Amino acid sequence: MAEGLLDVVGIGNAIVDVLAHAEEAFLLRHGLNKGTMTLIDADQATALYDAMGPGIEVSGGSAANTIAGLASLGGAGGFIGKVGADTLGEIFRHDIRASGVAFATPPTRSGTPTARSLILVTPDAQRTMNTYLGACIELGPADVDPATIAAARVTYLEGYLWDPPAAKQAFLKAARIAHEAGRKVALSLSDPFCVGRHRSEFRDLLRDHVDILFANEAEIRSLWQVEDFGRALQATRGLCELAALTRSARGSVVLAGDKAHALDAAPVAKLVDTTGAGDLYAAGFLHGYCRGLPPQECGRVGAIAAAEVISHVGARPETPLARLLPPQLQRAPDQRETDQIETQS
Amino acid sequence: MAEGLLDVVGIGNAIVDVLAHAEEAFLLRHGLNKGTMTLIDADQATALYDAMGPGIEVSGGSAANTIAGLASLGGAGGFIGKVGADTLGEIFRHDIRASGVAFATPPTRSGTPTARSLILVTPDAQRTMNTYLGACIELGPADVDPATIAAARVTYLEGYLWDPPAAKQAFLKAARIAHEAGRKVALSLSDPFCVGRHRSEFRDLLRDHVDILFANEAEIRSLWQVEDFGRALQATRGLCELAALTRSARGSVVLAGDKAHALDAAPVAKLVDTTGAGDLYAAGFLHGYCRGLPPQECGRVGAIAAAEVISHVGARPETPLARLLPPQLQRAPDQRETDQIETQS
Repeated sequence: MAEGLLDVVGIGNAIVDVLAHAEEAFLLRHGLNKGTMTLIDADQATALYDAMGPGIEVSGGSAANTIAGLASLGGAGGFIGKVGADTLGEIFRHDIRASGVAFATPPTRSGTPTARSLILVTPDAQRTMNTYLGACIELGPADVDPATIAAARVTYLEGYLWDPPAAKQAFLKAARIAHEAGRKVALSLSDPFCVGRHRSEFRDLLRDHVDILFANEAEIRSLWQVEDFGRALQATRGLCELAALTRSARGSVVLAGDKAHALDAAPVAKLVDTTGAGDLYAAGFLHGYCRGLPPQECGRVGAIAAAEVISHVGARPETPLARLLPPQLQRAPDQRETDQIETQS
Repeated sequence: MAEGLLDVVGIGNAIVDVLAHAEEAFLLRHGLNKGTMTLIDADQATALYDAMGPGIEVSGGSAANTIAGLASLGGAGGFIGKVGADTLGEIFRHDIRASGVAFATPPTRSGTPTARSLILVTPDAQRTMNTYLGACIELGPADVDPATIAAARVTYLEGYLWDPPAAKQAFLKAARIAHEAGRKVALSLSDPFCVGRHRSEFRDLLRDHVDILFANEAEIRSLWQVEDFGRALQATRGLCELAALTRSARGSVVLAGDKAHALDAAPVAKLVDTTGAGDLYAAGFLHGYCRGLPPQECGRVGAIAAAEVISHVGARPETPLARLLPPQLQRAPDQRETDQIETQS
């Protein structure tokens, strides 16, 4: 994996999603909090799986979705994540490699099974995720190959990695190696509840280790514990080299130095399933970044990638994303555009 | 499973589908015949899986889809089929039970893995299926519980069972038990190539053992080796108590005694994926049959169930089908309608 130069190497939880339809009453009966991601243990996973309806299995994981998206855009991506030595692990490995992503992390030898997220889709198209981390908790610093990190322009980390303790060490090791090699470190905040679990560590991390931040509105508000997006934006200014704050249908705001670029969301014919929108926005943004595009153009590529993934069920692209890019986004523009705005606060 | 009276018990190959998008060039490169089902061995399955794109895993199998559909309509269904003692087998078992279907066939003890069908979906929405039968070849007469068969109004068999040799014996045992108990035996011809592999045996079988036949246009033409649907229809008359011949968008023809009922297809807002249309038509037809509806009404329920499954990706219903039935189809009508036609020939 280390022989060629990579655009982005992602480190994240290697998860297979199990999707099933469920009524609101099912969520109530099982005490599930709609629209959130909850960590569950093996026994809870077995009990919930037994109770839930027929499912569809599909590879997932936030950073893994991002890197699969980057590869679909034509970028060179690698992924580091821990699966079990089992069928779901084989499925995960097959799918990410078949997406064109380099993946060489050895599976666990402990017998711990591959992580799965039991995802209940209610009639309002919302998703309630119940994740058993399984093998992911065994990801550690030894899985971070220094040559791979040093060979990638950007090391991309998901905030969810802060949940399994050893992964946190892997995360810090990767950030150190990347910076020593003159590379960039990007972080997605993952989930407002994940931010809630690790708020002060995330703030330190952003200040000390992160060059490019991705967060949605709920996550950035949770990070700064403010209700108002403008205030959250203000608090984020100058924290990292770049910050892309996504706002669903309201587009995104890209902070670069003392500039804030407000960008529209890309048009979507039919909104089917919003899962993966943030993951794919990050894919497009990083693809643009690695092609040398200015920040606002990176955000535009992010919006295009996000629009594709929300037009169908599932968090990985169905269409080769490179085909969706307008020609002017496939090369660096000659001059910066003039759509910079001042941050509202 | 045998304590309560079942409407339909299905016997078929227990398969997990692995669906991936593919370009036409991929089919050409791998010598795959578009739109057909081909049996492959374990090595071929491994090689093809390694070559194909990222996949989605979902429970399948023709008769299993039918019984899942019957349960979704509110019918009492059971399924007999062989899985391996592995993760895909657990997924199959979970999904069919979660659909409300009784399933108690023990997994293989031989280590043979659960069957999988590697399905390539080309941009024209056609599917090319490559099935590794795995554990299905170990289904045998011992798996046919006499009490279960005797407890079901209809025993439903898929023609694909004629491929694994021991399953053929299970099939004949089930048919004998069903008839001794005064029950009915239904058969789906499954696939025109399957008919080609077993034509003369299928003809004998229909004459001697089958009360209700399901076939699409290509299958019934293949059975009689005629080009003209009218001639195939004529050849089928009087062969079985009932025969339902489906014609995609042109609806279906139900043969009952000396009458032929031509029925329209049910309206579909958007045709997405035709896989499962025949399986779900059979589900609806048998549900109507077990409710005592006359043959043409059975065909109408079949058309409604088929219309739902072709409106989305996947061969099992996404919507509880019972909700789609008009009230008059949920009870037996007072008198036969007058839409009988004479067979064209």
